[in-house]
Amino acid sequence: ADKTSEVSVFSDKDLNTAAWLRDAARLDNASYRILESLTTEVGPRMAGTPADARAVAWAEAKFKELGFDKVWKEPVTFPSWQRGEEKAEIVAPFPQPLTITALGNSIATPAGGLTAELVQFATFKDLQAASPDAVKGKIVFINHKMQTAADYGSVQAGRTKGASEAARKGAVAIVIRSVGTDSHRFPHTGVMNYEDGVEKIPAAAMSNSDADMVVRMIKRGKPVSLKLSLSSGANGSYTSYNVIGEITGSELPNEYVLMGGHLDSWDLGTGTIDDGAGCAITMAAAEFIKRQGLKPKRSIRVVLFANEEQGLFGGKAYAAANEKQISKIQAAAEADSGQGPVTQLSSFVRPEAFAVVKQMQAVMAPLGVVAGDNNAYPGPDMGSLRSLGAASFGLTLKADDYFDLHHTPDDTFDKIEPARINQATAAFAVYAWMSANSPVNFGSGQEPLKSRK
Amino acid sequence: ADKTSEVSVFSDKDLNTAAWLRDAARLDNASYRILESLTTEVGPRMAGTPADARAVAWAEAKFKELGFDKVWKEPVTFPSWQRGEEKAEIVAPFPQPLTITALGNSIATPAGGLTAELVQFATFKDLQAASPDAVKGKIVFINHKMQTAADYGSVQAGRTKGASEAARKGAVAIVIRSVGTDSHRFPHTGVMNYEDGVEKIPAAAMSNSDADMVVRMIKRGKPVSLKLSLSSGANGSYTSYNVIGEITGSELPNEYVLMGGHLDSWDLGTGTIDDGAGCAITMAAAEFIKRQGLKPKRSIRVVLFANEEQGLFGGKAYAAANEKQISKIQAAAEADSGQGPVTQLSSFVRPEAFAVVKQMQAVMAPLGVVAGDNNAYPGPDMGSLRSLGAASFGLTLKADDYFDLHHTPDDTFDKIEPARINQATAAFAVYAWMSANSPVNFGSGQEPLKSRK
Ligand SMILES: [Zn+2]
Ligand SMILES: [Zn+2]
Ligand SMILES: [Zn+2]
Ligand SMILES: [Zn+2]
Repeated sequence: ADKTSEVSVFSDKDLNTAAWLRDAARLDNASYRILESLTTEVGPRMAGTPADARAVAWAEAKFKELGFDKVWKEPVTFPSWQRGEEKAEIVAPFPQPLTITALGNSIATPAGGLTAELVQFATFKDLQAASPDAVKGKIVFINHKMQTAADYGSVQAGRTKGASEAARKGAVAIVIRSVGTDSHRFPHTGVMNYEDGVEKIPAAAMSNSDADMVVRMIKRGKPVSLKLSLSSGANGSYTSYNVIGEITGSELPNEYVLMGGHLDSWDLGTGTIDDGAGCAITMAAAEFIKRQGLKPKRSIRVVLFANEEQGLFGGKAYAAANEKQISKIQAAAEADSGQGPVTQLSSFVRPEAFAVVKQMQAVMAPLGVVAGDNNAYPGPDMGSLRSLGAASFGLTLKADDYFDLHHTPDDTFDKIEPARINQATAAFAVYAWMSANSPVNFGSGQEPLKSRK
Repeated sequence: ADKTSEVSVFSDKDLNTAAWLRDAARLDNASYRILESLTTEVGPRMAGTPADARAVAWAEAKFKELGFDKVWKEPVTFPSWQRGEEKAEIVAPFPQPLTITALGNSIATPAGGLTAELVQFATFKDLQAASPDAVKGKIVFINHKMQTAADYGSVQAGRTKGASEAARKGAVAIVIRSVGTDSHRFPHTGVMNYEDGVEKIPAAAMSNSDADMVVRMIKRGKPVSLKLSLSSGANGSYTSYNVIGEITGSELPNEYVLMGGHLDSWDLGTGTIDDGAGCAITMAAAEFIKRQGLKPKRSIRVVLFANEEQGLFGGKAYAAANEKQISKIQAAAEADSGQGPVTQLSSFVRPEAFAVVKQMQAVMAPLGVVAGDNNAYPGPDMGSLRSLGAASFGLTLKADDYFDLHHTPDDTFDKIEPARINQATAAFAVYAWMSANSPVNFGSGQEPLKSRK
């Protein structure tokens, strides 16, 4: 199947082209301009809202304007959710308003709100270990503080699973410390899920500043009562789209290199760093290759996924639609950790491609990109493809500011530094070009990738 | 009147005491604890709201708890204002919600809001120079960006006077870029005033992030329409209080050294840096002197002013009540620019006191305080006393973060660094102690201060 298997590395000419591409793309501002366009002309685009449809229309038009050879969309259907009004205040012993936001999927409180005493847990695990006697009739407050980006996985459990765990023990609501690294008064939203068979209770997050204050109140030893009012809730079914732009390959057009981000965002900010940046970086990386007249051998497809935020719906739909043609995917990579720079290139390829990956890493090295291992995870949306055995690359984005802004009102375009996003665009351009022109197939759907999913 | 006029400088013993006080106060955490108490137990305390009364009660109780010799309050009556609901969104050409807040004193929009095209001016001066034809029927947007703390005076004009200037030219509302140095998505509130005889129009501020976005929209050349809904408005008359705590002097109890800050705050944050810090610094500075058993010769009075934010009502009331006894005020100084450190000590004293002021500056020098001129402005609330010829000191607070947080929801206790507020407390303690024990009277109500107001 691999007609180029005898040639195991790039020629010097190809390496020179890749190096030229890297340096030229880094000086280009297209990703910055695309992101400016998306955040200004669409802004927040929560899945299932009227802005979701505006974002899809923007993406189709932008792909065409950028000169992609083919542009199409693929439907993605999911249950939609609406935020409604949200308000919280400490009513005793020290009346003060709190800055909170509903977590995605949360049900509403009763009209007029609910009031109950707070019970604090340091972590989700402490809630799991708690006696129902301590929780019954109360509002659970999980105080786990995210210190660095590395804490996201562990702290996130309180957000996603906290409500059902609390409800099982008789809590009437849950309000967590935001999953975020900033110390500004922004609550971080994000999805939560209700376990089947467990009563649903309202779920919200307060800003780190508010959580600090609530901790100070609780320390004083008197019961602290919170009034919470949410009118959020399910809003029927909605069909959005994965929007795809292709630069068609000159020799192997039916094999494709994938990259992309998710087009939807939370509603509080303007979806700049999460994940307008990923969309813009990958659109610009492909567009730059085309604009320079470079003709990739394989096709390059940029996929802007629908509704990542509320459950990876776009990624799952794309994987389902491509399950039968995994071997046609030369490589998959995703940008969903902010504006860059890319700091590491890891791979998930068959051993025959190791030499080529080393060359890709060498080309990226002048960007400050270090070589990673061969156990790459491409990202949340492309992750489903990797599970099906698709060759993948991890282009690690520096997330130093990502979890400051992530899912907050503060995720706005003024935070973007051109030098950072341009570097990321250059790295993705090199990834796409070298993968598309690789003398070896990376092994999607074959052993050993097939068994290592 | 000045029985000590023959002695023109402090003794070595007094200087040693002052130096000891400086170093000991700097290691004390009382101001941090007082500020923690105010922001946790009271929080936002906008003048004329129920929280105003809670703040007054807190202040009286705290002065007593801290062991002040006398604690009392003096009524201050003013027109009160309520915020209500506030909402804004761009409705065309790119629908997006904006983060805005009503400016203090703003009237409401019609119920259901008003919608009109935005007309942008770079500065308040450009609005002043504009033709009514360009403004009539529109919403004025003043885009003046505050770069550093030094811009506050000039940019503030758009906030305080913009509405009447816009209304005179036929505008239906005004929405300014926030007067603030941050680049987070917080709108900065602050007082505005309507000119007599000019129609009142609603006035709001958008965050710097939103203003950047609106500028990007306007640059695209199509009319940009904003929908604004405010339900703010006047709310009758209210009587609050200046709350005063005194450490009574041992030799000249009827002469007093003044220091303080304002007890009220805006409602969006918790009034930490503006001006809980000023209250805490000056309360702690006096309390530390008392706690150490140092007996000041003159009295030290800490004044926590009512309603500074909406028009210096507390400061004006205090000046009116003290107009006849200006000569009893040994010195006045105020803390209303954040958490410190104090960077400069300037004076406004008669020449006979210059040698003593030099000694005060020398004692503060190890804190990093440099000597200023003899044209000090004590601060907004004490400014009225200076206008009446009161000897004054300017303890300049480093305002590097002040206008990031000023009048926003983000003015919260987690921003306070103990080392900064402790240094400021030490500087105010030295000011209070050395002024109270000065061998010379500083000359309030006498020439040359009387004529130099
Ligand atoms: Zn994302
Ligand atoms: Zn996200
Ligand atoms: Zn102030
Ligand atoms: Zn203020």
